[in-house]
Amino acid sequence: MPTASEPNNPRPGPLGVSIISGEPVEPETDPFGAVCPSSGDPIPDRFHSASAGQVNDAANSAWRAFHQARDRTEDERATMLELIARRISGMGETIIDRAHLETGLPENRLEAELNRTTSTLEMFAKVVREGSWKRIAIDPPEPKRRPSPRPGIRRSLVPLGPVAVFGSSNFPLAYSTAGTDAASALAAGCPVIIKGHPLHPGTGELVAQAVSGAVRDAGFPPGWFSFLHAGGGREHAVGIELIRHPCIRAAGFTGSFEGGTALSRIASERPDPIPLYAEMGSVNPVFLLPGSVETEPRGIAQHIARSVSIYAGQQCTKPGLIFLVQGSTCEACVERFVRELDGSPPAPMLSAGIRRRYLRSLLRAIDTPGVRVLLGDPAAVRKSAQRVPENQPTHEKPVLLRTTEAVFIEQQALHEEIFGPAAVIVECKDAEGMLRCAGIIQGSLTGSLFLANTDLDLAQALAGILAMRVGRIICNGVPTGVEVGYGTVHGGPFPATNRPDTTAVGPFALERWCRPVAFQNTPQALLPPELHDENPTGRF
Amino acid sequence: MPTASEPNNPRPGPLGVSIISGEPVEPETDPFGAVCPSSGDPIPDRFHSASAGQVNDAANSAWRAFHQARDRTEDERATMLELIARRISGMGETIIDRAHLETGLPENRLEAELNRTTSTLEMFAKVVREGSWKRIAIDPPEPKRRPSPRPGIRRSLVPLGPVAVFGSSNFPLAYSTAGTDAASALAAGCPVIIKGHPLHPGTGELVAQAVSGAVRDAGFPPGWFSFLHAGGGREHAVGIELIRHPCIRAAGFTGSFEGGTALSRIASERPDPIPLYAEMGSVNPVFLLPGSVETEPRGIAQHIARSVSIYAGQQCTKPGLIFLVQGSTCEACVERFVRELDGSPPAPMLSAGIRRRYLRSLLRAIDTPGVRVLLGDPAAVRKSAQRVPENQPTHEKPVLLRTTEAVFIEQQALHEEIFGPAAVIVECKDAEGMLRCAGIIQGSLTGSLFLANTDLDLAQALAGILAMRVGRIICNGVPTGVEVGYGTVHGGPFPATNRPDTTAVGPFALERWCRPVAFQNTPQALLPPELHDENPTGRF
Repeated sequence: MPTASEPNNPRPGPLGVSIISGEPVEPETDPFGAVCPSSGDPIPDRFHSASAGQVNDAANSAWRAFHQARDRTEDERATMLELIARRISGMGETIIDRAHLETGLPENRLEAELNRTTSTLEMFAKVVREGSWKRIAIDPPEPKRRPSPRPGIRRSLVPLGPVAVFGSSNFPLAYSTAGTDAASALAAGCPVIIKGHPLHPGTGELVAQAVSGAVRDAGFPPGWFSFLHAGGGREHAVGIELIRHPCIRAAGFTGSFEGGTALSRIASERPDPIPLYAEMGSVNPVFLLPGSVETEPRGIAQHIARSVSIYAGQQCTKPGLIFLVQGSTCEACVERFVRELDGSPPAPMLSAGIRRRYLRSLLRAIDTPGVRVLLGDPAAVRKSAQRVPENQPTHEKPVLLRTTEAVFIEQQALHEEIFGPAAVIVECKDAEGMLRCAGIIQGSLTGSLFLANTDLDLAQALAGILAMRVGRIICNGVPTGVEVGYGTVHGGPFPATNRPDTTAVGPFALERWCRPVAFQNTPQALLPPELHDENPTGRF
Repeated sequence: MPTASEPNNPRPGPLGVSIISGEPVEPETDPFGAVCPSSGDPIPDRFHSASAGQVNDAANSAWRAFHQARDRTEDERATMLELIARRISGMGETIIDRAHLETGLPENRLEAELNRTTSTLEMFAKVVREGSWKRIAIDPPEPKRRPSPRPGIRRSLVPLGPVAVFGSSNFPLAYSTAGTDAASALAAGCPVIIKGHPLHPGTGELVAQAVSGAVRDAGFPPGWFSFLHAGGGREHAVGIELIRHPCIRAAGFTGSFEGGTALSRIASERPDPIPLYAEMGSVNPVFLLPGSVETEPRGIAQHIARSVSIYAGQQCTKPGLIFLVQGSTCEACVERFVRELDGSPPAPMLSAGIRRRYLRSLLRAIDTPGVRVLLGDPAAVRKSAQRVPENQPTHEKPVLLRTTEAVFIEQQALHEEIFGPAAVIVECKDAEGMLRCAGIIQGSLTGSLFLANTDLDLAQALAGILAMRVGRIICNGVPTGVEVGYGTVHGGPFPATNRPDTTAVGPFALERWCRPVAFQNTPQALLPPELHDENPTGRF
């Protein structure tokens, strides 16, 4: 069997097996396959989920690798990240073709996603080298303090150990095999084991080939990175076995509320609980303030319509709730919004299963008393929701619902995420009503305000409320399209995430895989390099 | 009824009722009392636990106060902390007398603890004013970026909301009503509700009078701070009701493993889980390296004996496991250690209940095959453990056990904390054996190394292992006596804490009560003050 990470492999492609410690393993489980959501056609390649023994092998290898190489320098880690980025870029076309086939996402989006993935790897390389993320503190000794001398104490961060990362369905590159969770864990000095997503197993395996090769090139032990296929009858088992494995010290998850809370419970019920950072779902409320609707109804409607419909609304930051204050200008904006959405072409959902869940949650909202359908065919939704065929195209056209403040406040069903190309317009009686609604939305990744100069008072009040309920406040912009920087917060109160004190994107994502250690009265030879006297500034 | 926080109260003393929103409340539950552990005598004062309705009142008031005053400036918060410190100092003698009566801890220790409590409050005042703890990040916009302009993003921290703090048994001041959890939560901008510890209810209430008065002086709404008595039949109920209350957004706990894990589960099983930071127990291994034992057997033995026996060993950082390499110098050190411990006077344990748990866990260790008793009377321990009388002095003399590396590796019972004046000496065959033991100790707050220049290689290897298993490494010093500074880490892997990514002492303790929020493309008027253009350095 060829080496998966061989750079000159003449016909690069997935081998259909997990990659453990840099090597493709023997198939030990029944095969599963993927489906092209655009056509509904099964993709011929077969994939073999990792067996329980293979999960164990991967975890043990990661543990050994960690103990063998956890003293590698920051520079060596940064170099590994850069090599991963380079290898992914080198395989770019192959990866994008495969991701397009497996997810139905358009190629230009996948290209952008691939660029974001490599630039995130490079960003973490820079951050790791720069060093301030370690938040070094040096308290000098005070030998003359009375009644007892004060010892010197120096603080830095240490990596937690092997990290399990769950690939997401909707971002096959940026939140999967070499996405932010994996990149930040590697940056922090943790080995990584990927639980591949069964909707894009080939994509995951190709990226894993790139990562494995780069880990080898960087001179790290091969157990530093493994990729496990997980589909068919072992879709959930592989992840659960990983989370329960004593060698796994932390985990990252991006996916559904059900998945995130179930895995989080498993992680916390271990004899030695581990952190599992789950990014789950988000309603991403958008507030259209009266002045803004009056001055720019058309631009706003276009902007939001695109944000709701693009990629069939399958983004954690898709705006799901749109709040307006009733009145004639509001109607003009709504009309325009309906027209814009109506003009959006149908786009494929990632799988029949995701389409089914979408239609069911949509139907639940449609069936809520007091909800009107502004765009879409309720009868068709009802019919489709009853039986979503497995091997057919999964395209869905946007749907727009409308309700009132009173109904929204009353009906919990409208507070929940509809993962797909749908949004609910909530018409508020007045500014007070908008504030009331803002105060009861579920914890969310984002909250957006469209405001004109005349809206400042209301905007201030809303921003104050939203700061307590979301991780990112956006003014005059849509929540989709997450920028990566030190300012980035991709997180938010439960149920958007289970760890609102963290971010899943940006340099601070690194900290999730570390913990602080203090060294008291410790000789130089025993200190990690960043705490030596030569680094008295708290930076490298 | 007099106002509890009245500064000129002619006869300051506990009123025996909870203080909610600055006012003593009516008794609604059966009274409970405290016992003086030194004499075994019941203390005459009666205390009334908060009723369920009072818990609810306190939580709702904290919530309202939070929404009313969460825009108070950092300076206003800092001033409140300073006022608390001043009021506590002003009541110092009364507080220390009462704490001495209720805990049996010596007055000089309580004086030092009171000073530490007030200096911690003052430290947080400084930290809050200085501002870098908010870790502000400002990513400027790039309007000319292609294909789309990059919006500006600014990040800061927001407080989580009302925090419940569980007073500890063993630090009636520094880890109780105005201890680090409360001080750091107030510093972060969170209202605080204290669940008082039933072993020192009067002390807790007196400190609460000081805090309530200072909250009022600082002009914060009185609901910003409440103190709830919790004893008798409602000892656990008050805490559980708090943790389950929807208005409580986070909690801090210092106590037993059983208590910490139970409350942590309750916090995570809420419909909206909240963080509960639990500091539980710790074995605090000490490694005596061969060179150090050879050069300074006497000093080391004295040092550790004092650390084990002081305050009847009732400290989370008490050294519980002492590792030596077998040989004649080792024997000299052990002999000296036994002599030093034997010379320590018996000291009272905090309560009959704590004494009972101590004797039972000690007995479990004594009864482990392969364990010898070097100091102490096993028959007496066995007899006392069977029936610990409620109203008698609780004094215990130090106990020292000894075992071998092989037995330690085999017997899980020896890996667990014995909360009280006991330690276990583990004799290792060689340096390798010491490393093996270090690799399997439970997650701990601290790990100590006594080393001479000749021990550097072994010390390096041990420090590497300990960095993965403890929160603080101490060289040539004992773990008791926690210094407060930016370098401080008072935390560590499970089961020492449930959140090894945090510290319960030092400026970084503040972060536990906050989460980040990003502001994208947000006008100045909507930004929190620290993100305004005037603060471009990331500091106030």
